[in-house]
Amino acid sequence: MDIDAARLRDDVETNATFGAVDAEDGRGRTVLTGSAADRRAREYLLGRLEDAGLDVRVDAVGNVVGRWTPPGCDPEAAPVAFGSHLDSVPRGGIFDGPLGVYGALEGVRAMQGSDVSPARPVDVVCFTEEEGARFGVGTLGSSVATGHRGTADALALEDDDGVTLRERLEGIGFDGDDEVDASEWDAWMELHIEQGTRLTAAGASVGVVESITGITNCEVTVRGEADHAGSTPMYERADALTAASEFVLDLERAAEELATTSEAAVGTAGKGSIAPNARNIVPERVQYQLDIRDVDRGKMDRLVERCRTSLARIERTRGVGTSLTRYRDSPPSRMAERCLTAADDAATARGVESIRLYSAAMHDTANLADVTDAGLLFAPSVDGVSHSPREWTDWDDCATASGVLAEAVRALAST
Amino acid sequence: MDIDAARLRDDVETNATFGAVDAEDGRGRTVLTGSAADRRAREYLLGRLEDAGLDVRVDAVGNVVGRWTPPGCDPEAAPVAFGSHLDSVPRGGIFDGPLGVYGALEGVRAMQGSDVSPARPVDVVCFTEEEGARFGVGTLGSSVATGHRGTADALALEDDDGVTLRERLEGIGFDGDDEVDASEWDAWMELHIEQGTRLTAAGASVGVVESITGITNCEVTVRGEADHAGSTPMYERADALTAASEFVLDLERAAEELATTSEAAVGTAGKGSIAPNARNIVPERVQYQLDIRDVDRGKMDRLVERCRTSLARIERTRGVGTSLTRYRDSPPSRMAERCLTAADDAATARGVESIRLYSAAMHDTANLADVTDAGLLFAPSVDGVSHSPREWTDWDDCATASGVLAEAVRALAST
Repeated sequence: MDIDAARLRDDVETNATFGAVDAEDGRGRTVLTGSAADRRAREYLLGRLEDAGLDVRVDAVGNVVGRWTPPGCDPEAAPVAFGSHLDSVPRGGIFDGPLGVYGALEGVRAMQGSDVSPARPVDVVCFTEEEGARFGVGTLGSSVATGHRGTADALALEDDDGVTLRERLEGIGFDGDDEVDASEWDAWMELHIEQGTRLTAAGASVGVVESITGITNCEVTVRGEADHAGSTPMYERADALTAASEFVLDLERAAEELATTSEAAVGTAGKGSIAPNARNIVPERVQYQLDIRDVDRGKMDRLVERCRTSLARIERTRGVGTSLTRYRDSPPSRMAERCLTAADDAATARGVESIRLYSAAMHDTANLADVTDAGLLFAPSVDGVSHSPREWTDWDDCATASGVLAEAVRALAST
Repeated sequence: MDIDAARLRDDVETNATFGAVDAEDGRGRTVLTGSAADRRAREYLLGRLEDAGLDVRVDAVGNVVGRWTPPGCDPEAAPVAFGSHLDSVPRGGIFDGPLGVYGALEGVRAMQGSDVSPARPVDVVCFTEEEGARFGVGTLGSSVATGHRGTADALALEDDDGVTLRERLEGIGFDGDDEVDASEWDAWMELHIEQGTRLTAAGASVGVVESITGITNCEVTVRGEADHAGSTPMYERADALTAASEFVLDLERAAEELATTSEAAVGTAGKGSIAPNARNIVPERVQYQLDIRDVDRGKMDRLVERCRTSLARIERTRGVGTSLTRYRDSPPSRMAERCLTAADDAATARGVESIRLYSAAMHDTANLADVTDAGLLFAPSVDGVSHSPREWTDWDDCATASGVLAEAVRALAST
C-alpha cells in the first residue's frame, strides 16, 4: 500500500492557496467558516473526493463526508471513518487540519491502488469550524455529528458580525441536506500535527495519542475598591490587582505541584482585564480566564479546588470580594484500546518509529471518543509551532504519518 | 469682609448647567476644552468678571484673567492672583475647579464690598484644560502661563479626533491675544475640593496644603514566551503574567514599607495589558503603568529603585525579559511659607477650624509654585468622592472656605 507523497503534497499545497496570507516567514492562511476561502477549499475537496470515486454527502452544518465502498465489502456494515478539518485560525498554518483531511483521502487512494480489500465502507471526513475562530465554539461540526450539540442550536450561532452559521453556510452553498451521524461509525481515526516537540525530541515520526486532556475554563473575578491612586494611603486600599496577582501565583504554584506527578497538568491565566484600567485609579475589578488541563479528571478538580482555597484566603486577608465560575468542563478523553493497538501495529508494519503520548490540545476526536472507538495520530511539528505561518511539517513526515494512518484504518476496516 | 454664600452658590450652580449630564445620584457635568459647554461656561465667567468691574484678558491657550485694580493701590505692583479651572473630566462633578474660580471671584466681590484696600491688583484666574481630559495633558493652561510648556507646543496638541487645541479654541472664540505670565504674580492661592476625607475625619472646614506630592509614572514591561496553554508543561514556560504578578506584589510591599514613615508614599499599578490575551495562550507580554507619589522626592526615587531591583530578580529567576521606563517625573511642590502663614492666619481670623495636610492629586498650583509664592486650600469633599456626579461639598463649606481664601489673599495683597 503506497502513499503517493507528491499527490498528498499537491493537495495540501493547493488547499494552502485558499485564504493564503502574506507572511515574512513561512506560509499562512485564513480560512473562516463561510468565507470565500472556505468555499474554495470545500469545493476543491469535493472535487478531489469525487475524483477518487467517493460518494459525497454534506450535512446541515457543512460537515463533508466522502464514502468509499470498497468492492466486495458489506455496504451496510458500519463504516470506519477518518479525517479532520479545513478551517483555520486567522493567519494559521497550512497543515493544522488539512493534513488530516488529505492524509485520509490519500489513505483511501492508497488502499484503492493496492490489493487490500476492507470489509467495511470507509468515510473521509471534513468537520466544520474545528477552530472556533468565527463562531467562538471549537470542534463545532463534530459536536453536532456526535450529538453533543443540536443542529438548530449550532445553526443559530452568531459570529462577531451578528451573522448566523446558517447564513454563512447558505452563502457558500454548503448548507447540506444529508445527515452525518458519527455514532454509526465502527471506528474513527484522525491524523493531526503534534503542535509540540515531543516527537522530535524522541526521534519518532508518528505519535500515538493515548488521551486528550480535559479542559476546564473558569472565570475568576476579584472585586476591590476604585480609589484615587494618589490620595488613598496604602493601608486603606482594597486593590483588586494586587489581590489577583497573589491568586495568579497561587494558581501557578498549585499547577506546578500537580505537574510533578503528571506532566499534562497545567493551569494558566492567559486572558485578563482590569477595571477601570486607569493609571491613577486603584484597580476596582480584575478578571482572569483560566485554562486548566490534565489527562486525569481528579487532578483537574483538585486544581480548581486549590483556586477556590486561594481566593477564600485572599478574601480574608485583603478585604476584597472574589468569585470563581467554572463555565466549561470537558473531561479527558481516553482513546480506544482497539485504535491504539491498530496504530501501534500500523507503525510497526510500516517500519516507522512511534511513541505513545497525550494531546493537550482539543481535537474533533475528543467528541468522537464519546460515541465510537476513536484514535488520534500525530505527525511532527517543526519547533512545535502551530497557529502561525511558521507552522511546518516536513513533506516526508506528512507522507510517513499518512501511511501509518492508512494502515491503521485498513486494519480497523478489515473485520 | 462678608462672603455672599447665595451669590457664590448661584454662580457654581449656573456653571453646573453647562455640560450637565443625567445622573441617578448627584449632579454631574462634562466640560471638555473647546466644547459648546466650555464656551458657555467661559462666556458666563467673562460676564460675571465684567459684572464685578474686572478687566478681562484671554491668552493664546484660553487662560482667562480678570483683574481688579483696587482704588488706591499701586496699579504697577505685582498682582496677587487666585483661581482654578472650569473644565471637567467626562461626567465629573460640579465643584472640582469651579469652586476655586467662583470662590476667587466671590473673594474679590467681598473685598469690594468691604473696607479693605489691597495695595496690589488682584487677578481672578481660570486656567485651560486642568484635567487633561481632551488633550491628555493635565494642568495644561498653567503649564503655559508658568513657562513649563511653550505656547506653540500647547496649541499643536491634538485630541483623539486629531483636532488641535488651537482649532478647538478658535472654534469657541477663546484663542486670545493677551499674555498671562504667572511669574509676574507676587503670590498665588487656589481653593479646591479635597477629594479625600481627612478634613471630615478631623472635623475641619479648611485644609491648608503644605505640599503637593510629586508624581512619577513608569511603564513596566515583562516579556515571556507565547506558548500553547495546553501543550506547554509548567516547567517549560516563561509566563509573562505570573512574572508580572510577582512584580506587582513587590511594588505593593515596597510602597507599604515606605508608607510606614510617610503616609503620602504610594505606589500603584492601575493600568495594564496582557498580550496576546487569549485564554489558551501563555501570556507573552504584560505591561503595567505605575503611579508613584510622595511628598519626599528621595522616597519616590527609592521606590523606583526597588522596582528595578524586583525586575532584575524576576529576570534571573523566571527567564523573562523586563524593562522599566520612567516617562514622567514631577517633583513634589512645597507651598510657600508666606502663603501657609497667610492661610493659617486667615482661618484663625475667621474662626474656622483648619488643619495642615498634603495633596496627593495634581493641581495647577504645582506649576505656580515653581515661579511664585503659591498656596493651596482645600474644602471638604463628602465621602472624598470626586470625578463623579456624586462629588459634593456642602454650600456652607463652600462659603466658609471662600471666606478663608479671600482673607488670605487680602493679607497677601496688603503689602
